Amino acid sequence: MIIYRLINCSIKRRIILSPNKLRFYTNSYPYQKQTDIDQFANSQVAFPSRTHTCGDLRLNHVNRRVVLSGWAQRIRKLSPELIFLPIRDSYGTTQLVYRSSKLADDTSLVLRNELSQLSTESVICVEGVVIQRSQDTINKNMLTGEIEVEIDKLYCLNPAYTLPFLPSDKKLSSEEVRLKHRYIDLRRDIIQNNLRKRSLVSWTIRDFLVNEGFVEVETPILFKSTPEGAREFVVPTRTKGLFYALTQSPQQYKQLLMTGGIDKYFQIAKCFRDEDLRADRQPEFTQIDLEMSFVKIDDIISLIEKMLVQVWKKVLGIDLTNKVPFQRMTFNEAMRKFGSDKPDTRHGMEIKDISSFISDPSVLSEYYVECLVIKNGIKFLSNSEIESLKLLDNNSEDSKAKCEFHEIKADKLDSWFFNSHILKRSSSLHDSFTKELNIEVGDFVIMNKRKKNLTKSWTLLGRIRSRIITLLQLKDISVISPLKHNFLWIESFPLFTYNDDTGQLASTHHPFTAPLSEDIELLLKNPEKVKGQNYDLILNGVEIGGGSIRIHSPKLQRIIFKKILKLGDEEIKGFEHLTNALGHGCPPHGGIALGFDRLLTIMFETNSIKNVIAFPKTASGNDLTVSSPSEISKEKMEEYGIQLISDN
Amino acid sequence: MIIYRLINCSIKRRIILSPNKLRFYTNSYPYQKQTDIDQFANSQVAFPSRTHTCGDLRLNHVNRRVVLSGWAQRIRKLSPELIFLPIRDSYGTTQLVYRSSKLADDTSLVLRNELSQLSTESVICVEGVVIQRSQDTINKNMLTGEIEVEIDKLYCLNPAYTLPFLPSDKKLSSEEVRLKHRYIDLRRDIIQNNLRKRSLVSWTIRDFLVNEGFVEVETPILFKSTPEGAREFVVPTRTKGLFYALTQSPQQYKQLLMTGGIDKYFQIAKCFRDEDLRADRQPEFTQIDLEMSFVKIDDIISLIEKMLVQVWKKVLGIDLTNKVPFQRMTFNEAMRKFGSDKPDTRHGMEIKDISSFISDPSVLSEYYVECLVIKNGIKFLSNSEIESLKLLDNNSEDSKAKCEFHEIKADKLDSWFFNSHILKRSSSLHDSFTKELNIEVGDFVIMNKRKKNLTKSWTLLGRIRSRIITLLQLKDISVISPLKHNFLWIESFPLFTYNDDTGQLASTHHPFTAPLSEDIELLLKNPEKVKGQNYDLILNGVEIGGGSIRIHSPKLQRIIFKKILKLGDEEIKGFEHLTNALGHGCPPHGGIALGFDRLLTIMFETNSIKNVIAFPKTASGNDLTVSSPSEISKEKMEEYGIQLISDN
Repeated sequence: MIIYRLINCSIKRRIILSPNKLRFYTNSYPYQKQTDIDQFANSQVAFPSRTHTCGDLRLNHVNRRVVLSGWAQRIRKLSPELIFLPIRDSYGTTQLVYRSSKLADDTSLVLRNELSQLSTESVICVEGVVIQRSQDTINKNMLTGEIEVEIDKLYCLNPAYTLPFLPSDKKLSSEEVRLKHRYIDLRRDIIQNNLRKRSLVSWTIRDFLVNEGFVEVETPILFKSTPEGAREFVVPTRTKGLFYALTQSPQQYKQLLMTGGIDKYFQIAKCFRDEDLRADRQPEFTQIDLEMSFVKIDDIISLIEKMLVQVWKKVLGIDLTNKVPFQRMTFNEAMRKFGSDKPDTRHGMEIKDISSFISDPSVLSEYYVECLVIKNGIKFLSNSEIESLKLLDNNSEDSKAKCEFHEIKADKLDSWFFNSHILKRSSSLHDSFTKELNIEVGDFVIMNKRKKNLTKSWTLLGRIRSRIITLLQLKDISVISPLKHNFLWIESFPLFTYNDDTGQLASTHHPFTAPLSEDIELLLKNPEKVKGQNYDLILNGVEIGGGSIRIHSPKLQRIIFKKILKLGDEEIKGFEHLTNALGHGCPPHGGIALGFDRLLTIMFETNSIKNVIAFPKTASGNDLTVSSPSEISKEKMEEYGIQLISDN
Repeated sequence: MIIYRLINCSIKRRIILSPNKLRFYTNSYPYQKQTDIDQFANSQVAFPSRTHTCGDLRLNHVNRRVVLSGWAQRIRKLSPELIFLPIRDSYGTTQLVYRSSKLADDTSLVLRNELSQLSTESVICVEGVVIQRSQDTINKNMLTGEIEVEIDKLYCLNPAYTLPFLPSDKKLSSEEVRLKHRYIDLRRDIIQNNLRKRSLVSWTIRDFLVNEGFVEVETPILFKSTPEGAREFVVPTRTKGLFYALTQSPQQYKQLLMTGGIDKYFQIAKCFRDEDLRADRQPEFTQIDLEMSFVKIDDIISLIEKMLVQVWKKVLGIDLTNKVPFQRMTFNEAMRKFGSDKPDTRHGMEIKDISSFISDPSVLSEYYVECLVIKNGIKFLSNSEIESLKLLDNNSEDSKAKCEFHEIKADKLDSWFFNSHILKRSSSLHDSFTKELNIEVGDFVIMNKRKKNLTKSWTLLGRIRSRIITLLQLKDISVISPLKHNFLWIESFPLFTYNDDTGQLASTHHPFTAPLSEDIELLLKNPEKVKGQNYDLILNGVEIGGGSIRIHSPKLQRIIFKKILKLGDEEIKGFEHLTNALGHGCPPHGGIALGFDRLLTIMFETNSIKNVIAFPKTASGNDLTVSSPSEISKEKMEEYGIQLISDN
């Protein structure tokens, strides 16, 4: 009966394969003496459907006849009569056992022969009976460790050639080899788990947003080349000279959807950016993108917090409730306290404002004066490390900002203070200074003065702080629980910044962000001082998303294009569909986009974004699995009206 | 208190806008006398958060103070004291009413002034009190038709310029105008509903598949150019001469995922195909793509049936349970009965095999002889229509297949039969022929003989049948309920077909489909006779998906590439990553892909695929909303190592 039930095959006549034929087949491997025809004749072998997965069987299945399918692991031959073979599938591993004593003579012989031919990672299907393991052979590390399956039938569905590496290898092959054979790498537990959890995260996010009344809308990937789209991929069309560009983000389309009355939009969207790849970048990446009409900053922030609480709970089993609302900090405060617009607040080590110890008003009008104290820094930092910190100073964008490095040694307890060019102070302040900053013998003190108006992502002291944290972590001096998830909102970024190269004003985020203040005079006269209704979400020092309330007034949008950014007519025309839409009944709206791959990298505590993507590309943009990009024929280029630029 | 609760604005100081300021603002529109600065100063106006949507309010809300936001509809001024204004948002429409008698004098004046300035489709926010409508003014066609909101405050959040058309227009503007201003078209009920239902369908499908243990995996869109990818878009890279291609389907990646042990994969995937666009085609489209390991045809078919039952139930409220399992038909049977591999089985009108009436064995060995009877065809089909059917004959791919058209008139009841070149029969068979085919006076009889081995999608009689069905539908002679959803599986397609132009053998689907038979001799000697383990899903005569069990044997795959398809070494090399993967432990697997946009078009009973896509492209591939594709600069081309082919 059980056997009959298993035979669940659409083409009945192909089901039952005689042991004879099967033996013939497995014998034929790995020797390639037979003709192609023989090999083919047995190549798509029929097999019964599995009754369970390799992660399913427990004590309550004992004595049940089962069918399992999966990948043969390393065989262990204790004797010609007793052979162990673990079988692995996507759900777990089960111990198979061959016991000749339990089998009829001819079955026993056939099966032993088949097992002896089996290469590791071959795909097999087995039939057998679930047996309770003896007390001393129970494996508590396996979910199925209390049972084993005594097999009496084996189908080799696809014999494996020798693999370049095994999923079970303790020592990993090079990344290049693993990416080339990604389909083997995918069988490793960590990648399997990450892909399954990734699916669960996107599922949870959709579940949450749909329940919040959001509509998932797919926006085009074949978009328009935009004047500012320096980093966009272009796609030639059969109309010579006309190109699509791949969307860098659904920004414009989602604003059009708001104008179209979608009210609450989301999309887990593929985006494309052709830029120099770093460890955490991919030319194609995924964004959790959403936009809402008639909302304020707080509406979006609290929605995202609620969403992340649900995701953390469901996927990691961690309750973030008591962290809500997440900490919020303005851009200015973050730059003052941490010297970064994406500070890692798991570490204390705040930068202190020491302006009150400076008497020169001309300095104070132009500069912030700051101090960073590394407790026990003398002990923890080597001379060469301190030298490397000083090098950061040289690379600083602000050539006038020169740091001072002071070691607080017992014999120089006072002198460092008086030698400081930045402080230039009398002894009377020495005590209050060291007291306020809690400076003690053994500490390492770094002071800096920097220009006040900040638009960059880092200050010099911020970079130094970050480097020191990395150094202390590498030495296990500063140990942070991987379970520590510090969320932080950074708000009120400057809307515009002067481009270092051109001296022109440019948008810091994108040019659709609404200003925080309605002070038009400020906007026109000192645009670099205007803050935006924008917000970034930081997790453990990594920016995982950002958004803003957008401009919905066509007039304001045009002023910004024309009078602030001073775009040319051609460029302004390129945005005309959007400004027109604003004037045709666009509601107030705002939204956010979260970098999905980056979020997952942190959530899953893995060191590379490649570990959360099924088929990642290398730093040079190559897909080693399928060998792309690649050359295309001249004819194909001609269809698209293009040719390669000649070398002369 | 209520007012206070409404003030839910992140920047408190911006909340309360004096009526004065508001009036100033609305007064400034549409006159553009003021400076840009004045206009800007009021452009991003503060407003309270809505308490309800425009579809929410019912009798139980009467006397509640509410805030609504949305689009102003056509204003109806009954008198200076009584003005009606419907407000619409994504969820419904609510009647607003201005009754000066209920307002203080100054409020009344301000409000009337503001209303008088309001253009249709301007975005507004109002505060007021819910009132029960009098019995004679209840509107049963509106969900909110039992109430109205007496307003006392209005914020014009974004005044609308004159729109090129209104969402409420009864007569539609041209498609071109509507696509250009898609953000207005999106506000129309039908498009709104379609996009919301589309979101619900994809949500339901994900819900179903995740519960069935599927893992959603995102596969790359930047793929490799493949030798057979005649219809793929190419994407140049910054490495001169190297190109990505946009995936036409995730086929190769999903097979690699099976090799990687993902076991059950799905993705709602964006795919790209650069082909001549027809009404139901888009250069980018969405597929419901899935693949499973260790399965047979029946496993996939029953999964999809279960999924569609759930989708129909949840989205359309239609129970398909009694249609499961869907009808299944081989390719050969479909071609014989309906002359099409995607027959519309809502219509009877089957084609009959009349071989038994042919005595010449040489004809029968090479040809099928078929007959189609159109009941009352003489009455229903005009002469010009019959001529148009005869023209189909001329366009037939089989030049030897010549149709015979016979009108069964009372005075020619016998003669037509004897005059038939195809039948060439004696009178003794006339009676049994007319009886078996139920031929009566007034019918229209079409006979044809055609070559036996079929690889095309249509026979000549199939085309004629389809054309006649269309004609009868246009004349309302054949009326089909739009609720009739006839699902049909077509199976066992030929694996290979000879290319008309080259005479070379080509795959009918893709070259990874497993053959149905293991008869290797047949495969090598008569490959065009080999059927595949493939299946298409047809709904009301439209192919909405297709799939197959794939080849997992590297040897069989290589034989097909080399000996059947006779690919060159270079082409075979282009597939090497895949054949290598098959030999590194690839499980038996199969899957399917459903055309999501097409499925929705039928589900939502709409006549164009454009009505189920947020931003569709025109037949020539243009996105009229953002004006893409467009020209790009020479510099940008140079970055990618390309230039336009010169005209000389």
